[in-house]
Amino acid sequence: MDITSETHSQHISKQFNQELEELKTHLMAMGGLVEKQVQEAVTALLDSDTRLAERVRDNDKAVNEMQLKIDDECTRVLARRQPAASDLRLVLAVTRATSDLERIGDEACKIARNAIALAEAGRQVHGFVEVRHISEHVRNMIRDALTAFTRFDTELALKVAQEDDAVDSEYTSAMRSLMTFMMEDPRSISSILSVMWILRALERIGDHADNLAEYVIYLVKGLDVRHRNIHSLDDSSLTGKG
Amino acid sequence: MDITSETHSQHISKQFNQELEELKTHLMAMGGLVEKQVQEAVTALLDSDTRLAERVRDNDKAVNEMQLKIDDECTRVLARRQPAASDLRLVLAVTRATSDLERIGDEACKIARNAIALAEAGRQVHGFVEVRHISEHVRNMIRDALTAFTRFDTELALKVAQEDDAVDSEYTSAMRSLMTFMMEDPRSISSILSVMWILRALERIGDHADNLAEYVIYLVKGLDVRHRNIHSLDDSSLTGKG
Repeated sequence: MDITSETHSQHISKQFNQELEELKTHLMAMGGLVEKQVQEAVTALLDSDTRLAERVRDNDKAVNEMQLKIDDECTRVLARRQPAASDLRLVLAVTRATSDLERIGDEACKIARNAIALAEAGRQVHGFVEVRHISEHVRNMIRDALTAFTRFDTELALKVAQEDDAVDSEYTSAMRSLMTFMMEDPRSISSILSVMWILRALERIGDHADNLAEYVIYLVKGLDVRHRNIHSLDDSSLTGKG
Repeated sequence: MDITSETHSQHISKQFNQELEELKTHLMAMGGLVEKQVQEAVTALLDSDTRLAERVRDNDKAVNEMQLKIDDECTRVLARRQPAASDLRLVLAVTRATSDLERIGDEACKIARNAIALAEAGRQVHGFVEVRHISEHVRNMIRDALTAFTRFDTELALKVAQEDDAVDSEYTSAMRSLMTFMMEDPRSISSILSVMWILRALERIGDHADNLAEYVIYLVKGLDVRHRNIHSLDDSSLTGKG
């Protein structure tokens, strides 16, 4: 049932093969844009750069357009090529992945909007160290998940899922300490709430990157691991290194 | 390009037609369960009923299982029947819809978890009136979106999108007043934060119901209206009543 890059290149129809490659290329381009959106939204926050935050907000249109375009390509491939087995899984995995990338883009926008609110309030607030730290984590997760997708690399996909557990626990501890600061200084409530929404957005981005990693396993193994704890799966059966 | 229930019943293959009908039936069953989860999560909150909240949390597994089962059916139909045009759109719309229903289920779980935390804290808090009100709104949206799906009813789908605007504005005003209460009584911060997470979950549920409504328009009109303001579309062109 396993597929590799090789089997995908053995299509009788060279044109069909090219279409599948293009789907992947376009998905990677969308992933690159989305990752940049997350990075710039966080930079805008940390540097109180309202103009950059506005650019992130405006660029969301481009992310949405890419989703519609890639989904449309997927529908065309399904209608014209009627793919089966691993090709069908690739097309379905791409269309699911665009949905998660688009939602990551939405979360980047939310971060940008809160960055604007915080810059306007002009107060130095708590939680920026945690935001920087967690944002680095989730950006690595997006990048690794996309690399895993291109390379059909289930081992890397499993690593993304493990990173998500780390992000969740960092998030929980950051939220707890922010709540303490709120109680100590009620005047900071509004600003700290904005930082909480930002942390929440980052945590959701981690979840979406985790979804992307699950599609890689579905793609390669034909195994739908959504809603399972993929750590509990036999590593060797997934990585082929057993 | 329009389709109606009639065209779907004119398939040469009776078996194929039956498979498509089953997809819809199973999606409706999943929708019914998810709507019940939302209702029970909110009831658990309003009645401080921890046991009911725990049942909602445990039932999420059933929601997830339904998603995997329906998605698997969709994949089988794509592989075996190689549907085109409106049939292909139906299968793709069903698989997208399961993803939104599953996420509504996740949000119901979040409400249930916060209901447990609030019942344990044992404090009467602000915002319950707003929670009840917004939850009634979003449950109507889910129900209408699912009905619109079964009946290929774009007019009802547009109504769902309009409801979502109302939910968003109720949500914003509820959040604002909760923040004021927090500032007035810092001891209530932790409880009010729980209510804020619940309102956020309800607002997200509204967004997912809105997505379901967009798939109905895609399904019937072959028009991908995601990321457009569907109110700005010419109503008569969508409802066929122009």
